[in-house]
Amino acid sequence: MSRESPIVTLLTDFGTADYFVSSLKGRILSANPRARIVDITHDIPPQDIEAAAFTLLATCHIFPPGTIHVAVVDPGVGTSRKPILIEAGKMFFVGPDNGIFSYVCERFGPARRLIHLNNEKYFARPVSQTFNGRDVFAPVAAALSNGVKSARLGTPIHEMVQLPSLKLATGPDGKIFGRVIHIDRFGNCVTNITERELSSEMIAKGASLQVKGKRITSFRRYFAEETGKRSKVFAVWGSAGFLEIAAANDSAARILRLKRGDVVTGSAGVPPAAAAQARRR
Amino acid sequence: MSRESPIVTLLTDFGTADYFVSSLKGRILSANPRARIVDITHDIPPQDIEAAAFTLLATCHIFPPGTIHVAVVDPGVGTSRKPILIEAGKMFFVGPDNGIFSYVCERFGPARRLIHLNNEKYFARPVSQTFNGRDVFAPVAAALSNGVKSARLGTPIHEMVQLPSLKLATGPDGKIFGRVIHIDRFGNCVTNITERELSSEMIAKGASLQVKGKRITSFRRYFAEETGKRSKVFAVWGSAGFLEIAAANDSAARILRLKRGDVVTGSAGVPPAAAAQARRR
Amino acid sequence: MSRESPIVTLLTDFGTADYFVSSLKGRILSANPRARIVDITHDIPPQDIEAAAFTLLATCHIFPPGTIHVAVVDPGVGTSRKPILIEAGKMFFVGPDNGIFSYVCERFGPARRLIHLNNEKYFARPVSQTFNGRDVFAPVAAALSNGVKSARLGTPIHEMVQLPSLKLATGPDGKIFGRVIHIDRFGNCVTNITERELSSEMIAKGASLQVKGKRITSFRRYFAEETGKRSKVFAVWGSAGFLEIAAANDSAARILRLKRGDVVTGSAGVPPAAAAQARRR
Repeated sequence: MSRESPIVTLLTDFGTADYFVSSLKGRILSANPRARIVDITHDIPPQDIEAAAFTLLATCHIFPPGTIHVAVVDPGVGTSRKPILIEAGKMFFVGPDNGIFSYVCERFGPARRLIHLNNEKYFARPVSQTFNGRDVFAPVAAALSNGVKSARLGTPIHEMVQLPSLKLATGPDGKIFGRVIHIDRFGNCVTNITERELSSEMIAKGASLQVKGKRITSFRRYFAEETGKRSKVFAVWGSAGFLEIAAANDSAARILRLKRGDVVTGSAGVPPAAAAQARRR
Repeated sequence: MSRESPIVTLLTDFGTADYFVSSLKGRILSANPRARIVDITHDIPPQDIEAAAFTLLATCHIFPPGTIHVAVVDPGVGTSRKPILIEAGKMFFVGPDNGIFSYVCERFGPARRLIHLNNEKYFARPVSQTFNGRDVFAPVAAALSNGVKSARLGTPIHEMVQLPSLKLATGPDGKIFGRVIHIDRFGNCVTNITERELSSEMIAKGASLQVKGKRITSFRRYFAEETGKRSKVFAVWGSAGFLEIAAANDSAARILRLKRGDVVTGSAGVPPAAAAQARRR
Repeated sequence: MSRESPIVTLLTDFGTADYFVSSLKGRILSANPRARIVDITHDIPPQDIEAAAFTLLATCHIFPPGTIHVAVVDPGVGTSRKPILIEAGKMFFVGPDNGIFSYVCERFGPARRLIHLNNEKYFARPVSQTFNGRDVFAPVAAALSNGVKSARLGTPIHEMVQLPSLKLATGPDGKIFGRVIHIDRFGNCVTNITERELSSEMIAKGASLQVKGKRITSFRRYFAEETGKRSKVFAVWGSAGFLEIAAANDSAARILRLKRGDVVTGSAGVPPAAAAQARRR
């Protein structure tokens, strides 16, 4: 371990009004006074595991190697759902086994280690049945930050709960079938389409998106770009590396009545004549 | 003082949208660049001293010994209410004398030292009459974190403002008379009943709660526990060490129209026959 | 550079629910693991450059010399607006050239250095066209915190975008013409009037304010002060050093229908007789 203690990040649905978040921090600092704690967010909608999984995916890899990410969105707290630890992509992930680490493992994995956290020696006692964040996940993260090896914290396992994959389906005609994986607070709809599936070249040649019966042909590089097209709704490469459906100073989710899971179809460019005809309708 | 500077926590009703919280942090870091500052919360409802007192009670002891807790919910700022410092339970508490430290002294006290902070040498000048947090409490906390002794910061006093005690009243028949001391953002109603007054054995033998004319006989170990009973409202040991009245995926406060201060009566178990009869009604 | 790494503060309109703020922090910590990051606020109303400029003005100077203030309220992200760095008053300011640093330069300036941040060597690659905070401003701030000199980060320039000045206009009769420069979440209206223009002596002699046709003659030292006057609306010296128009337990902005930019006129004291007559009307 270097002179600097690893960073421990926290991502929860606890909100910031109660004593919950600070109790995790107090626990970590009591076990490792040199820990450096960074909040990712505590405003995940209550019990929204997919929102947590996406948010973690979008930011975890920007932290230094060795960072310990603690994610606690845990509707099953107190039940038999396992507390787990994952090592993947030079990062550590600590939290409940409910799919919350599904996206990060898909992108930065495969996991080098997957541990069922069942060594109670590293828990704070007594363990509150309603607050494993404070009594299980925070002390385990602190132990990791103190240099305790993953293998000592529990038993290796081979499977974890998975959310539906981020991978796209592709049709025989080159069509891609994506979906909305996240809607941010501005109403921008993040899809699971990346530049691998929809290249700049394809966009230049006239690729389009189809969503809820509406065709989107306007692609921007940034939100304020003037494209000459008057369409309010457009596609833009978001900062998480995914194509987003956005609206100029408005909520694309509201305009298109989009919700998470809705299908977004991508088609390669069509010949100009056909495109013109399509526009005329 | 060890190599590590003590932790300074902040608990206020300032919200996070303005320049208030960062001004406390700037002041502390200017006086002690090695200070480690942790937010408890800044979302205490404006001027709600009891909510601040409860939140501090629920989290302060989880931090390392020597932690300096600064709590500023201060409707009387500018008036003659005293700025005070308390040493209790290996912790320091800095803030206004308005009852905000009442609960922590009751649980972790008695106070070893109670100081009226009147040594202006340790204030930032000029002292804003509307912002003692920045100009009195933060610089005093920074001085403490730099190793200045409490006695140098002001004059010993012997009394402080007290909120109503957390202690329960007990009836001749073993009944306990508690009250709702906090309602969290999910509508869970925290009572002042602890395991000392209502043991697992009493619960196993059929203890019940009475609140606003309604009898609660369902006790759960955690929120998602399946108990076989269909009652929506139940009691659960909360993570702050108090019995809470909760509702499955709903707000117990709303369902029972509970507010802070409402009486919660606890009764020991009744013979099964009587209990069955009670249920039949 | 001393043993302690400089502090990096963050002020944005990103909110705290998404992955945006943590991505700035991750970037900074990846480049400088010893950086100490402090949030000013992330709850600036979306795209509200003036609110950001005021908030920064009210708190930046309370941090230690050498602090690096990163401010990202950036409606023009992706366009040709310049990323800039300013050295002023022993502080560094990093952000977009859109007026956000206008107030701090007016009060703590003039700028010793003004740099167009165009040395892409210090950016994170690839630069997202929608998220310069993560890919331009955060890495530049981290470089500064690592001791990189301003001159290496870009090209000196001589002009930056300015908001309307904080300076007051003065009439021939000693009248002062100020304006509302900020409204806080309690509805207190911060003016640009300071003690230089309206001294305690003038107030003692009966100075008054005029706003939206209403005359304010009640001046308090702090919010809870009992003045004997029954007026609900009063003026009070705010903690940012400006005269504020406030209302007892209410929103002055709502009562007076004030908005940012509204004119506030100050007049010196009038002879008691004239004042009495004025009150009688």
